[in-house]
Amino acid sequence: MQGDAFHVYDTTLRDGSQQEGLNLSVADKLAVARHLDDLGVGFIEGGWPGANPKDTEFFRRAQTELGLRHAQLTAFGATRRAGVKAADDPQVAALRESGASVVTLVAKSHDRHVELALRTTLEENLAMIRDTVSHLRAEGQRVFLDAEHFFDGYKANRAYALEAVRTAAEAGADVVALCDTNGGMLPDELADVVHEVVSAGLRVGIHCHDDSGCAVANSLAAVKAGATHVQGCANGYGERSGNANLFTVIGNLQLKRGMNLVSDAQLAEMTRIAHAVSEVTNITPGSQQPYVGLSAFAHKAGLHASAVKVDPNLYQHIDPATVGNDMRMLVSSMAGRASVELKGRELGYDLSGEKAKAVVDRVKELESTGYTFEAADASFELLLREELTGVRQRHFEVESWRSIVERRPDGSMVSEATVKLHAKGERIIATGEGNGPVNALDNALRVALGRLYPELARLELVDYKVRILEGTHGTGARTRVLIESGDGEREWGTVGVEDNVIAASWQALEEAVTYCLLHAGHEVGAGTDSAAPAGE
Amino acid sequence: MQGDAFHVYDTTLRDGSQQEGLNLSVADKLAVARHLDDLGVGFIEGGWPGANPKDTEFFRRAQTELGLRHAQLTAFGATRRAGVKAADDPQVAALRESGASVVTLVAKSHDRHVELALRTTLEENLAMIRDTVSHLRAEGQRVFLDAEHFFDGYKANRAYALEAVRTAAEAGADVVALCDTNGGMLPDELADVVHEVVSAGLRVGIHCHDDSGCAVANSLAAVKAGATHVQGCANGYGERSGNANLFTVIGNLQLKRGMNLVSDAQLAEMTRIAHAVSEVTNITPGSQQPYVGLSAFAHKAGLHASAVKVDPNLYQHIDPATVGNDMRMLVSSMAGRASVELKGRELGYDLSGEKAKAVVDRVKELESTGYTFEAADASFELLLREELTGVRQRHFEVESWRSIVERRPDGSMVSEATVKLHAKGERIIATGEGNGPVNALDNALRVALGRLYPELARLELVDYKVRILEGTHGTGARTRVLIESGDGEREWGTVGVEDNVIAASWQALEEAVTYCLLHAGHEVGAGTDSAAPAGE
Repeated sequence: MQGDAFHVYDTTLRDGSQQEGLNLSVADKLAVARHLDDLGVGFIEGGWPGANPKDTEFFRRAQTELGLRHAQLTAFGATRRAGVKAADDPQVAALRESGASVVTLVAKSHDRHVELALRTTLEENLAMIRDTVSHLRAEGQRVFLDAEHFFDGYKANRAYALEAVRTAAEAGADVVALCDTNGGMLPDELADVVHEVVSAGLRVGIHCHDDSGCAVANSLAAVKAGATHVQGCANGYGERSGNANLFTVIGNLQLKRGMNLVSDAQLAEMTRIAHAVSEVTNITPGSQQPYVGLSAFAHKAGLHASAVKVDPNLYQHIDPATVGNDMRMLVSSMAGRASVELKGRELGYDLSGEKAKAVVDRVKELESTGYTFEAADASFELLLREELTGVRQRHFEVESWRSIVERRPDGSMVSEATVKLHAKGERIIATGEGNGPVNALDNALRVALGRLYPELARLELVDYKVRILEGTHGTGARTRVLIESGDGEREWGTVGVEDNVIAASWQALEEAVTYCLLHAGHEVGAGTDSAAPAGE
Repeated sequence: MQGDAFHVYDTTLRDGSQQEGLNLSVADKLAVARHLDDLGVGFIEGGWPGANPKDTEFFRRAQTELGLRHAQLTAFGATRRAGVKAADDPQVAALRESGASVVTLVAKSHDRHVELALRTTLEENLAMIRDTVSHLRAEGQRVFLDAEHFFDGYKANRAYALEAVRTAAEAGADVVALCDTNGGMLPDELADVVHEVVSAGLRVGIHCHDDSGCAVANSLAAVKAGATHVQGCANGYGERSGNANLFTVIGNLQLKRGMNLVSDAQLAEMTRIAHAVSEVTNITPGSQQPYVGLSAFAHKAGLHASAVKVDPNLYQHIDPATVGNDMRMLVSSMAGRASVELKGRELGYDLSGEKAKAVVDRVKELESTGYTFEAADASFELLLREELTGVRQRHFEVESWRSIVERRPDGSMVSEATVKLHAKGERIIATGEGNGPVNALDNALRVALGRLYPELARLELVDYKVRILEGTHGTGARTRVLIESGDGEREWGTVGVEDNVIAASWQALEEAVTYCLLHAGHEVGAGTDSAAPAGE
């Protein structure tokens, strides 16, 4: 979309994967690259070919398997070693032979780092930059330079930092990306430095980390100061506090600075892509993430709800649909009737007048006993359907269940559960084991229903939360359990409140299964799935 | 520390608790307020007295129970209703009678919001501001104004937005806090508006949300433009994408802008406090959080390992110790050697040199498996004693236990537990019932030990918290239980980590009982209370 005038440059596969706990296989990297390509980023930095077998294999497979439609694949690497010709350095050779048309070279621009980390002279470092850039350019590759620790280097030895990037540009680097490697900069100071380098006639890029919580603002400040190349990572992944969140940067530049970075259709995929990437990385997506987070447009305050109904855009900084997100009303007593109506509309029900009042009354009554529906949308939907249709969705009728946890004299632990229930006219008894009482109950319930409802095989417990509600006697208080479930396509929350954690968990489990079956097409009311045995 | 010249204003208990999934009890609110007071913030907004029974009770209890040492408690509320005298408005009366010396009034400054949400005239809205501020001032309270949606209001109707805040100031409001309520502002534009209001001679505060990922940068920009009052929330809690993270704001202003907001000692507690608050809210702390996150100073081994060793400060934007964090981050704030020494001294042990190292190593090892000692001081003390004396406090030896929870066909619930243990040379078998499995285990344990240790009658479970670690496996993950116990005089916390919630609870219960007996004078080591039966 943006052509070459402005670069949206993703480094999730390289710098993002420095995040603690983030480990991407080659297949993962290919999958993430395709998602980012769908979003329409201009450059995808694939890794450091030659530095480790995984990245080498990624570049090998990328040449035949990746098939990028928008983005250009970029190889990351370092300037040549001290005292060696660029053409003779095997690390440089790996870049040359990576198949990537663009190489991003990391170089030192901070004098102390040259001495401490490279253990060479300031002069030799400049030669390393000059030689490596020239060599790769002569071999036909485009070269960008990542000037590591540039801002600290500028503070420590301004002339040398500037000389390092000027050397790269003179040798043929198209972009010098100024890196706030330790993430400590604040926007005003950073903008001044960027402005100076831009004024020197260089094409400037920006690479920010979030150690001051300002990575996004720093990126925007740099662009305003003249940078035309911005680096970041999907979902703000990265070492320490992460890199600039590329999704937030894109949202801000496109929707608030009027830049045309990706198409409207691509932008409308951003929320989906953010979640798809987090499925690959297996890192729970941050619900508070700007633009694309689950909570990014979730309203709870009762103060707002009535006016939100009249004009949602008065309460939202953008229309969530532009980034593929949705406004959600969190149902709580603080919100009241207006938010119940909105929530009903979101689920496809007309909840005007008396109906909304009945639902609000029911929600308030349940909340006064400890329920919360703001993180239990599925439980709320089941309640709503029951209030509106008079029919409770119930695919099975529980007769009894029992859960046993035992620590044996030899120190081993056993968790076992038995459920007895009626479904489709049958009486079923099933037993499950687990690594805890809830897991055992969950397994027993799946065993009991699995033959009648094979679609339950896809049901997965994603998250499980327990909260003891204030009573006066600790474990004697009421217990609230929230369960987040998924079937690979969508996720939903259910809630259970009981005197004890096992019973509350059972209730939330039961609703999770009911909701799963309902959305798999088993709607009770048509008569086919009713749990009540014929003779009872 | 900062006197009145600059205000650090926390709104975790009010605006922060609008976060999806965050529900604070009155006891939770008191606990969070104490943590924030320890950090040295100037103002703690406690909630909206009169708006709901919980906030009303919080202000009632705060008057006798809270005992803030640094901060002033602030009550939040709205301007009077249209067409009613401020003195006659029950909502205003609740503010007046809240016991808080400062009231923060939210007011409309955006013309469309006045019409849509308040459904009154622009003139009446100004009168509502004027009357309510004057009334509360006349009654002896200090008043701050939160100008809701100020920046959008300024864009829509500049003159009216300015008139609204000027009206408040003229009526006696000390601060007009400009609120970026929907969080859509970017720093440059926001700073221009702040500058204009400051230039009009008003004392300006700033209240930011993170919908553009710029809440921290916006707060800094406002301060640079002349704001002398900054609002935010612990850990960036808040509706949608959250409020400005107060910890990040404090870190930046103090360490990068040279402002003296809290003492060095208080700042060094910031990481501990951030984690302690998240234990109360039961929201997993963001590991990437700037300054205080677990990963904020975590370096993945690689490119710079040797240079990091030579001079870590070349690779870090600040010295992590200044905020109580640690570069290697296998260590929590608790396990830092200095705090271990301090804690040891507090408990009466000399922990210099090698001894402290052994304890730190043990804590690190346990933390890597999911333990946290932040809210489990009693477990930490037991561990400390064991490391120092070589003797584990153990008044009884468990042979086995079993917990059964059953839902019977008639719908009734039964929870029953049996424990078999050895104490004072006897083998004891006891059974307890309860309203849940943990309560039943607790009762069984008391029955078993009650005859030998009558002082256990005073032991009470005060609070019980469960957290599932590694959220991706649902009920299959490891479980951490924190139990708060009391004996009417003091309270103490214990922790258990196991594969399942019952086993983890048992572990925390066992330590709670052990600690109770230890402090009732039964110290193992004198030979009198050892659990080991004579013949075994």
